Amino acid sequence: MKILVTGFEPFEGAAINPALEAVRRLPDTIAGASIVRAELPVVFGKDIEVLRAAVAEHEPDVTLCIGQAGGRTHITPEFVGINYAHARIPDNEGNQPLAQPIVEGGPDAYFTTLPVHAMVEKMRAAGIPAAVSCTAGTFCCNEMLYAVLHLCATEYPAMRGGFIHVPYATEQAAPLAEGTASLPIETMVAGLTCAIEAIVEHPEGDVVGAGGREH
Amino acid sequence: MKILVTGFEPFEGAAINPALEAVRRLPDTIAGASIVRAELPVVFGKDIEVLRAAVAEHEPDVTLCIGQAGGRTHITPEFVGINYAHARIPDNEGNQPLAQPIVEGGPDAYFTTLPVHAMVEKMRAAGIPAAVSCTAGTFCCNEMLYAVLHLCATEYPAMRGGFIHVPYATEQAAPLAEGTASLPIETMVAGLTCAIEAIVEHPEGDVVGAGGREH
Amino acid sequence: MKILVTGFEPFEGAAINPALEAVRRLPDTIAGASIVRAELPVVFGKDIEVLRAAVAEHEPDVTLCIGQAGGRTHITPEFVGINYAHARIPDNEGNQPLAQPIVEGGPDAYFTTLPVHAMVEKMRAAGIPAAVSCTAGTFCCNEMLYAVLHLCATEYPAMRGGFIHVPYATEQAAPLAEGTASLPIETMVAGLTCAIEAIVEHPEGDVVGAGGREH
Amino acid sequence: MKILVTGFEPFEGAAINPALEAVRRLPDTIAGASIVRAELPVVFGKDIEVLRAAVAEHEPDVTLCIGQAGGRTHITPEFVGINYAHARIPDNEGNQPLAQPIVEGGPDAYFTTLPVHAMVEKMRAAGIPAAVSCTAGTFCCNEMLYAVLHLCATEYPAMRGGFIHVPYATEQAAPLAEGTASLPIETMVAGLTCAIEAIVEHPEGDVVGAGGREH
Repeated sequence: MKILVTGFEPFEGAAINPALEAVRRLPDTIAGASIVRAELPVVFGKDIEVLRAAVAEHEPDVTLCIGQAGGRTHITPEFVGINYAHARIPDNEGNQPLAQPIVEGGPDAYFTTLPVHAMVEKMRAAGIPAAVSCTAGTFCCNEMLYAVLHLCATEYPAMRGGFIHVPYATEQAAPLAEGTASLPIETMVAGLTCAIEAIVEHPEGDVVGAGGREH
Repeated sequence: MKILVTGFEPFEGAAINPALEAVRRLPDTIAGASIVRAELPVVFGKDIEVLRAAVAEHEPDVTLCIGQAGGRTHITPEFVGINYAHARIPDNEGNQPLAQPIVEGGPDAYFTTLPVHAMVEKMRAAGIPAAVSCTAGTFCCNEMLYAVLHLCATEYPAMRGGFIHVPYATEQAAPLAEGTASLPIETMVAGLTCAIEAIVEHPEGDVVGAGGREH
Repeated sequence: MKILVTGFEPFEGAAINPALEAVRRLPDTIAGASIVRAELPVVFGKDIEVLRAAVAEHEPDVTLCIGQAGGRTHITPEFVGINYAHARIPDNEGNQPLAQPIVEGGPDAYFTTLPVHAMVEKMRAAGIPAAVSCTAGTFCCNEMLYAVLHLCATEYPAMRGGFIHVPYATEQAAPLAEGTASLPIETMVAGLTCAIEAIVEHPEGDVVGAGGREH
Repeated sequence: MKILVTGFEPFEGAAINPALEAVRRLPDTIAGASIVRAELPVVFGKDIEVLRAAVAEHEPDVTLCIGQAGGRTHITPEFVGINYAHARIPDNEGNQPLAQPIVEGGPDAYFTTLPVHAMVEKMRAAGIPAAVSCTAGTFCCNEMLYAVLHLCATEYPAMRGGFIHVPYATEQAAPLAEGTASLPIETMVAGLTCAIEAIVEHPEGDVVGAGGREH
C-alpha cells in the first residue's frame, strides 16, 4: 500500500507549520505501507494543483492531508469536507475568497473515506488526545479535504482520502498566554503514525466508534 | 410570508431548553411575516415526523429550527446539515444511533437555503453576539437541519430551511463554575427576531459576509 | 448605609467599559442603601488618588469597585487583592509597571471584607451567572482592590471594601468570533443590584457558600 | 544546593497524578543541585504534616511542590498562596473544608520566594508552554503553597519555597472530548528541569519578566 501524506507550509506569518514538521518526521514505512510526501502551498487553487500533480506522480492508495488547527487540544481526523471557500484571512498570495464554491457544480459535501473512528481509537489507545471533527473550517484545509474527496469521486475511484488537523506545536504556544493548547511535534508524529496504522488495518469501512457531539 | 419556527423540548435532564423558551416568546408577526410554532421532541426519527406534520399543516415559506448549543457564546445560524446521526448521549426515549444515515441514500450534506450571513450581520448590528457555524453536530439538531433541507429538496421546492443554535440561558449557567457561557433568553428572542427580519428581507440569496474559519 | 460604587473608564482602545456603563445605570437606592458613584481612570497611581478623593468626599460605609474581565463568562466578586502591579499592556497614560508593589511595605495581600459568597448566591438565585474569583489579575483592577482594602486597613477601619469583575458586554462580543463570552449590560445591572443587596443584608461576615477551585 | 520536590498522589478517582509522575522521572541532579523527593497525600492537614517531616528530614535549600491543574494548557509557577481552604470536592479522606484558614492567625497570603519569571522564561526558551499564575486555587495545592511559604517565614528563614501546576497528561485527555488540554509527562519533566535550573541560577531575586493579566 502506498500512502501520500501532505503537509501545508506555514501561513499567517508563522515560522513553522506543525503539520508539515510532523509529516517530514514520519517514518518511510508504517505498518508495511510506504509513505510518500508532498508539501502544499497555503494558496487557494494552487494547493489543488500541487495535490493533483502529487497524486498523478505517486498514484497512491490513500491520500491523507495534514493541517494546523491552532487552538484545538486534540488531533482531529475530519469527517466531512464542504464545497465552500470563505476566508477570514488572506492566503499566502493574498487571495481571500468569500462564499465561493471550491468545485463549481460539485456536491455540497463529501464524507471522508478514511476510517476516522478507528484512527481515533488507535491514537487514544496510545494515550494521544484524538477526536473526530465534523468541520474542517472554510479555509485551505477544508479546500484540500474537499478536493481530495472530489478527486477520489471523479478520477481515482480506488483511492481513499481524508484530512487530519493537528494542534499548535508546543514551541508555538510557549510564548503565548495560558489558554492556548498545544502538543509536541513528536506527539503528533506518534499520533499520525497510529492513524496511518488504522488506515492500513481497515482497508474497507470503519469501526463504530463512540463520540458524537450535540452541536 | 409564513415562517414556521420550531424549538426542541429539554433533554439530558435539563429543566428547560432555551431554544423552546425563546421560540415561545417570539412575537406573532416579524417584519410582516406571520410566525407559527412547533415543539419538537428530542427523539431521533420522531422529531422528523413531528416536523413533517407541522410543515404539512402550515405550508410555510420558511422553516427555521432552533436548538441549544450548550457552551457556545454566540447565536449561530448553521451553514450545513450532514446525513449522519452519531449520538454521544441517549435521546429522550433512550435511542443512541451510531454512524447512521438520517436519510438512506440521501446526499452527504445540504447547505442551508437561509441567508445566514445576512442573519448574522443583522444580529451583530443590534449588538447581539452572532456567528455562522459550519457544524450542527451529529445529534438531533443536525438531524433536524438535514431533514428540513431534504424536505425542501424533495417535496417542498419553494420552501427555504435552516437552523439556529442558541447558547445556554443565563439561568442554566448561573449555578455552574465560571467558564460556561450563556445569554439571557430575552437576548435570544431579540437575536432570533433580527435573524427572521433578515430572512424576510433576503428572499433570495445571501449577502457576502465576513467570517470564515481556518478550522 | 452609603455605598460608593466605582467604574473604570474604557481602556486598550475600547469604546466602552461595561463596568462603567453598568455602574451608571444602577438605581440610586438599593435595599435602603444610597448609592454614590465615581469614575476611575485606568492609570496606575491616579486611580488610587481618584479613589481616595471619592472616599474622603463621600465617607461611604462600603466601597465597591467594578471592572471589566474580558473573556470571563460570569460576574465574579474578587476574594483577594495582591500587592503587585505587573502590566501586560500600557495603561491609558502609557505606564506599564512591572513587578512593582502597589504599597511599598504593605502586606502581600488583603482578603475582601465583603460577603462574596452571599453576593454570589443572591445573583445565582436570580438566574445570573456568578462565581467567586481568587485572582483580580495584576493590572489596575487588582491595584484598586488592594488599594481599597489598604485604605480600610489603615485609615477607614469601619469601611468595608471589595471588587467585582464583569464580562464583556454583548455589544463588545457581537462582532468577534464565536468563543468570546459576554452578558448584556442590563444583566450586569441586575447582578450588581443583587450583590449590593447581599452586602446590605450581611453587614458582618459572610455565608459559607459552595464553590472552591482545585487550581 | 539541595532541592526538595514534592508531587501529590492521584485524587478525585484519577488513575495517575501527572505531577507525581513527572517528579518521579526528574533526574537526581539538576544544574549541580541534588534533587530529593516526597509524595504528598491529597488530604487537608496531612499534606502539611508529610511536608514538614520531609523538610525536617532533608533540610533542603528549596522546597518546590508540584500539582495538577486539569484544564490548564501551560506549566504554571504560582505567584501567591492564600490562607484559605475552600474545597469544591472532598479530599482523599473525605474532608471538605469550607472557608477555613490554613494557619489560624497567619497573614492572608505569601508571595513565592522562587524566581517565577526566570522559571517561565527558561521553559519558554526551550519551547515549553509556561506562564506565571496568580491563583493556585483553594484546594490542597494552594494549601501546600501557603504551608511551604509559612514554614519559610516562621521556621526555615534560609529556605525558598514555591509551587508549579502542570496540565493534564496526554493519556488523561486522550479519551475526553476535544477541548481538554494536556501535555506529555516527558514535556513536564523537561519543563520542571528548566524551572529548577532557573531556581539554581537565581539564588536571590527574579528577573523582570513580561506577562501580567488584566484579570
